[in-house]
Parts: sequence; structure tokens; C-alpha cells
Amino acid sequence: MTARFHITRLVEFNHCDPAGIVFYPRYFEMISALVERFMADGLGHPWAGMLAQGNGTPMGDIQIRFDAPSRLGDVLDIDLGVTRIGRASATLDLRCLSSGMRRFGGTATLVHANLETGRSLPWPDDLRDRMGAYLHTPKKVKEPT
Amino acid sequence: MTARFHITRLVEFNHCDPAGIVFYPRYFEMISALVERFMADGLGHPWAGMLAQGNGTPMGDIQIRFDAPSRLGDVLDIDLGVTRIGRASATLDLRCLSSGMRRFGGTATLVHANLETGRSLPWPDDLRDRMGAYLHTPKKVKEPT
Amino acid sequence: MTARFHITRLVEFNHCDPAGIVFYPRYFEMISALVERFMADGLGHPWAGMLAQGNGTPMGDIQIRFDAPSRLGDVLDIDLGVTRIGRASATLDLRCLSSGMRRFGGTATLVHANLETGRSLPWPDDLRDRMGAYLHTPKKVKEPT
Amino acid sequence: MTARFHITRLVEFNHCDPAGIVFYPRYFEMISALVERFMADGLGHPWAGMLAQGNGTPMGDIQIRFDAPSRLGDVLDIDLGVTRIGRASATLDLRCLSSGMRRFGGTATLVHANLETGRSLPWPDDLRDRMGAYLHTPKKVKEPT
Repeated sequence: MTARFHITRLVEFNHCDPAGIVFYPRYFEMISALVERFMADGLGHPWAGMLAQGNGTPMGDIQIRFDAPSRLGDVLDIDLGVTRIGRASATLDLRCLSSGMRRFGGTATLVHANLETGRSLPWPDDLRDRMGAYLHTPKKVKEPT
Repeated sequence: MTARFHITRLVEFNHCDPAGIVFYPRYFEMISALVERFMADGLGHPWAGMLAQGNGTPMGDIQIRFDAPSRLGDVLDIDLGVTRIGRASATLDLRCLSSGMRRFGGTATLVHANLETGRSLPWPDDLRDRMGAYLHTPKKVKEPT
Repeated sequence: MTARFHITRLVEFNHCDPAGIVFYPRYFEMISALVERFMADGLGHPWAGMLAQGNGTPMGDIQIRFDAPSRLGDVLDIDLGVTRIGRASATLDLRCLSSGMRRFGGTATLVHANLETGRSLPWPDDLRDRMGAYLHTPKKVKEPT
Repeated sequence: MTARFHITRLVEFNHCDPAGIVFYPRYFEMISALVERFMADGLGHPWAGMLAQGNGTPMGDIQIRFDAPSRLGDVLDIDLGVTRIGRASATLDLRCLSSGMRRFGGTATLVHANLETGRSLPWPDDLRDRMGAYLHTPKKVKEPT
């Protein structure tokens, strides 16, 4: 059994749009926060330390399917697992549940890179090893019809 | 020849992260603004009017690939074309260029729906007709390697 | 002795600007969240319920003095006390500390109002009573020089 | 006669809250953009160049009074004048109108500083000179009642 890494967020007024539901770009801020905590708390490689060396893990690509709207006061459980660890990139699967119902899900690929040159950098060995604890085979995701 | 709909955005301080590049959730705010202007100026169906009837075009799914970072002061040209018009949904392809170089690209599916019930609604005929002016066959997009 | 109401926030990547410090408009989002939790958890009058009746507590005016920058990973303790309860408005004093040092402070006036008409509404008696538990005499704040 | 510096913003969906009006922290993002354009276009000292030298103009304090709500589709005219030029700081008065009616107004004090040390820096002479073109005597602002 492998682990997933998760954070919890309460839907606040500032996340919601005039339709009274979470404005989807705010979900991407939450996903960024999830990855930030994963690097810091899950893997022990906080962005602050990487940044000080001019490095980071910019988003390479992301695909999200929105299943149901979230509303003011909902408690969101957002988690990730690792589905692929490449030389200098990693693919995550992402999931957000509330009251046991799926709000969104998808996949994202992070690139480990020097932020000045834009060049990709192999993952340090210890980071790669720790990431392995979250590696799992993704479940087949139903395609949108 | 079919049209694409575009907006221009200047990269401002509020879009940029501690690495000095656009924080990717801000791109999704720009994509939202692009779709908002498309509905209002391209199709003559502003969200304000739809909202007054309890309707909207929530995002169903979105996939974006980030090709190169954008920096403070860059001028972004963000555009869309329509690649599929369904009964109650539409698929867009999205592209962002700056100085002729691609910053991001991807696809998004909007759903026409009642926001209270969450139920999808067929596009009104006039809206569907106007959307047709932006319909084109998508170019094959290179997959991430 | 009267109570102050407080929340804790971790400074995340999405709060920080290219100078590596919290972008000050993000502080106003945190202040909004503080007031939101105060109404819900401190006073038992969540905004969601008020909104359902077309009412709210829009910001009337706000004055903030920024004392020192906050950085990625800082833990912020943000609190408020009530310094004046009017017929349909209330004045709060606001404070943000991190590691015992002041990051910002100021005052804000909320108005209880119907959001459609914009007309102010007297506070309900129970809400006014509960607010009283947080009422205190403000300390003289040093003026900026 | 002295000049004011202004920008125009269209109220977009992403600026609006569940009450259908501009969420006030978004106004502070607009004020940041106003000051950013003022430094770049009004004074010829863009933040990008200042940042490259480790300098900036962080907000020292800001006071805003909100007079009337703004709604989706409103066109905002946001402007500033300079009311005081100090050794290493400057005070601005801020104003936002839409259809000739005031939405908000207030004052802000910028500090010219080194962002690493936090130490204030005297304005360069040319910058101070150009700022002088926007210097005017503030009109008495009515106090909130």
C-alpha cells in the first residue's frame, strides 16, 4: 500500500464567484498549495530552500476535470499520489473530495528545473527516494463523454 | 477561414511569483477573462445576462501545457478557437503567445448549465450559430515527451 | 477583560510577490477571511446565512499600516477586537503578528446592509450582544511619521 | 494645473464575490496595478528595473473608503495624484469613479526601499523631479460619519 498526501481547505468567501460556487482558478491555487506542502512536509524539500538555489518545480502541464461545484463553507479534502517519476519530472494524480463526493480530479506533471536558465535538473537521489513512497499505479480514470 | 477570438494582457506584478515568473493559477484567471470576453464580445451573450437567469458556462474540464515562462512586462496574446459544438457543451482550443513564442496552449470544455440545479442546457440556437463562426478543425498538438 | 478573535495563516507561495514577500493585497484576503470566521465562529452569524437573505457586512472603510514584510513559511497570527458598535456598523481593530513581531495593524469599519438595495440595516439584537464580548477600548496607535 | 495619472479597468467575473459585487481585496490589486503603471509610464522608473537592483516601493500604509459597490461589466476609472514627496516616501491620493460616481477613494504612502535590508532609500533626483509634475494640494476629504 502506498501513501497519498493531502491537505484540507475550507471554502471561503474569497474563493467564490457571483454564482456562489468556487471560481475554478482558485482550485489551481489550492493545487499549488497542495504541491507546496507535499514538497515541504511530504518530501522534506521546501520550495523556499530550492528557490534560494535558483531552482523550483514549475508546472509542466495539468489536466483537471470538474465534477461538481463547491460552495461556501464546504470542507475540501485535496490529495495527490505520484504515478510516474522521471529523470527530472514527476506526474501526480490529483483528487478533491468533499463529504465523500468528488469535486475535481486530474493529473499534473512537475518539472525540476533551474528557474534562471529554464533547464531541467535531475531529481536529487534523496528526493527521488522519498517520492517513491507516494508512487502508485493510477486507477483508470473514466473519460469525459 | 474561421476566426479566433483574442485578448491581450500585460504581465503585472500581481501575476508574478517569487521566482519572478507568472504564477500559473493567474493564467487560469486570464483564460476565464478570455472566455468571458468571448461570450460577451464574440458571441453577444454576456455572462451578466446569463447569470440573471440562473445560467452560466462552468468549466467542465481543462488541460493546459506550459511551454515557457512569462515575466513582468511581457505582453501576452491569448486566443481561442472552437473545435467542437455539442448539444450543451463546447470545446475550445487555447493558446498564449508572447513575441511570437508560445507560452501555453491547451483545450477546455465549457458546459452550458443552470447553476442552481447543475443541469446542462442546450445552447440557444442563435448562440450556437454565432459560435459556428469560430469553429475550426484543431491542428494536431504535439504531445509532451 | 475582553476577548480578541484570531486566525492563523501560513504564508504560501501564492501570497508572495517577485520580491519574495507577501503581496499586500493578499493581506486583505486574509483580513476578509478573519472577518468571515469572526462572523461564523465568533458571533454565530455566518455570511452564508446572511447572503441567503440578501444581506451582508460589506467593508465601509479600512486603514492598514504595514510594519514589516512577511516571507514564505512565516506563520501569521491575525486578530481583531471590536472598538465601536454602531446602529448598523462596527469598527474593528486589526493586528497581524509573526514570531511576536508586528507585521501590520489598522482599523476597519463594517456596515450591516442589504446587498441589493445597499441600505444599511440595524444589527440584530443577538448579534449586537455577542459582539459586545469583543468590545474593548482601543490603544492609541502611533501615527506614521 | 497638475496632472493625475489614471488607468481604466473593466470589472470582470474574477473580481466579483457571491454578492455579485467587486470583492474589495481585488480593488487593492487594481491599486497595485495603478501604482505599477504610474512608476513605469508616469515616471519612467518601472518596478522591473528597480527589482533588478534589489529595490522597490513597498506600501507603507493605505486607507480606503468604499463609497458604492461595483458590478460585473462596470468600467472603472482609477487615478492618483501625489500629495506629499518625502525624502524616501511619497503620499498619493487615490480615487475610483465609474459613470462619474465615486466607488472608492483614499490615501496611500509608498516607501522607496531596499527590499533585502528593508532600509529606506532617498528618491533619485530625476524620479523626484518627475513626481513633482503630479504634486497637488489634496482636497479636504469628508470623514466617514
